[in-house]
Amino acid sequence: MGAAVTRIIGIDPGLRRTGWGVVDSDGVRLSYVASGIITSASDEDLAYRLRELFEGIAGVIASFMPQEAAVEETFVNDNARSTLKLGQARGMALLAPAMRGLLVAEYPPNLIKKSVTGAGHAEKRQIEAMIGFLLPKARVQSADEADALAIAICHANHRQARARLAVMSRL
Amino acid sequence: MGAAVTRIIGIDPGLRRTGWGVVDSDGVRLSYVASGIITSASDEDLAYRLRELFEGIAGVIASFMPQEAAVEETFVNDNARSTLKLGQARGMALLAPAMRGLLVAEYPPNLIKKSVTGAGHAEKRQIEAMIGFLLPKARVQSADEADALAIAICHANHRQARARLAVMSRL
Repeated sequence: MGAAVTRIIGIDPGLRRTGWGVVDSDGVRLSYVASGIITSASDEDLAYRLRELFEGIAGVIASFMPQEAAVEETFVNDNARSTLKLGQARGMALLAPAMRGLLVAEYPPNLIKKSVTGAGHAEKRQIEAMIGFLLPKARVQSADEADALAIAICHANHRQARARLAVMSRL
Repeated sequence: MGAAVTRIIGIDPGLRRTGWGVVDSDGVRLSYVASGIITSASDEDLAYRLRELFEGIAGVIASFMPQEAAVEETFVNDNARSTLKLGQARGMALLAPAMRGLLVAEYPPNLIKKSVTGAGHAEKRQIEAMIGFLLPKARVQSADEADALAIAICHANHRQARARLAVMSRL
């Protein structure tokens, strides 16, 4: 019996640059599918920048047809204005997969780093190095893309535990 | 020559409750069209709560066909987690009108209060009282609805000044 493959999109939201990465997981093995960056033009009105992000993420989902999505759960920020901006971009990263009925999981940054590097306080370049090791076919050109793939990998590692927990909570 | 009427939707975003209010403005007179509240179920996943808000706002826009939208520009909050939540809800309030190509204006809370009551630090019940006075036909059942109508009125009062500024910046 062949193991079922689940296709996962990881999204690292940001108003200027949103990273995305798609991987396939059969529960044991991971394989790279695609990754990239969606940007929004800083000279446009905020509402239209958000539309660019939303349409970009929706377009990636329509192209690669992932079954599940994962988004980083960041909220700490010294500056309320930046947190609000991040929240708005993050709304697009959550809405786009929800509009297609996908499961949308959220993970805190430390768990994402730990899933990929074994340490909760890994640096950006350690994450990039581990992405190259875990997904040798990945062509990653930026830290946002590497982070998005790390989020997808984190979900691949935790989705079965989540499913077990969900069953237990129903008992 | 009859003055052209512009239909405006004001949106007061919140994850639990988003207020909306629609008014018609001919540059001098204002008239009430409709208002209401969109809520999201707190036992649902965040992504699906955002989808409820987005679809609710998009539905109101499709029903009443406003030409312009206005959203409050809040970002001050003592708590990063609440600011992020507000940002996510606010993203829906900005995206829904942008998806239909509407102009989307943003106004700071003080300017909205001042437009309606004459004072930048008016209390909620003063705003509700002034909405009853400015829009006698309004049937407003909550503070969020009154706030949304105040946002729409603020835009009705400032849209011509904005248009003049835009022309001047092109000279």
